[in-house]
Amino acid sequence: MRFTRYTDYAFRVLIYLAVKPEGERATIKEIADRYVISENHLMKVTHRLGQQGFVHTVRGRLGGLELARAPAAINLGDVVRCCEDDLVLVECFDPATNQCRITAACTLTGIIGEALDAFLTVFDRYTLADLAAPRSQLLRLLSM
Amino acid sequence: MRFTRYTDYAFRVLIYLAVKPEGERATIKEIADRYVISENHLMKVTHRLGQQGFVHTVRGRLGGLELARAPAAINLGDVVRCCEDDLVLVECFDPATNQCRITAACTLTGIIGEALDAFLTVFDRYTLADLAAPRSQLLRLLSM
Repeated sequence: MRFTRYTDYAFRVLIYLAVKPEGERATIKEIADRYVISENHLMKVTHRLGQQGFVHTVRGRLGGLELARAPAAINLGDVVRCCEDDLVLVECFDPATNQCRITAACTLTGIIGEALDAFLTVFDRYTLADLAAPRSQLLRLLSM
Repeated sequence: MRFTRYTDYAFRVLIYLAVKPEGERATIKEIADRYVISENHLMKVTHRLGQQGFVHTVRGRLGGLELARAPAAINLGDVVRCCEDDLVLVECFDPATNQCRITAACTLTGIIGEALDAFLTVFDRYTLADLAAPRSQLLRLLSM
């Protein structure tokens, strides 16, 4: 069981933007360089984060990527739900492709759904402000 | 986020064996045929389930695969932990390969760990007996 790389990188982008000094913006290349990860993957991730209203791009000379809301207003459960569009833990979670013979009588589906709710509820209790709290340490680790 | 096919099939094997009439055993081919899934995958799954003490194989003319314990003694949290040996939700969960720059100051690791605990705790509350409860319906769906 793994998060997609999308989710992993989405968290890294959001943390990066959250610890940036007030008023400073970032480029995708800069974020990719500091984390030593693929710029190409980050482009897709930031595009999605933009569509979902977590970040936006300011044009112009001092332009770049910034958070669209204050870190305390970015709920981590929302981030996971936005990035993990494939929360299909087992075959029957996707009725379009499900071929499991026992679906009609299976109680496992409900148990997995309950477990997934419990999982997401934990993320719902935190915001990006919690992730950005160790700010000075994060700035140092990212050589910012 | 998905379970491995291992876990999905492990649950199917256990449910199949749990609804079998008392004293009857099953073959891997029979289980594969009833679920219309790959016999080859099932072989690996049942091997793992055997190693972990969930099922065992009886030799001889009336031999075959059977549960090693009563369904009520097979905890679903244990099944998930047995099959999902890759509960590495993000890169830093595997210190051997982790290259994330901010690991030392990252609070996300703790939040994900807490979410994973909440997820597994739900499975811990159920046993195979809960999955086998709609027995007559399951027997009909599996043409047993």
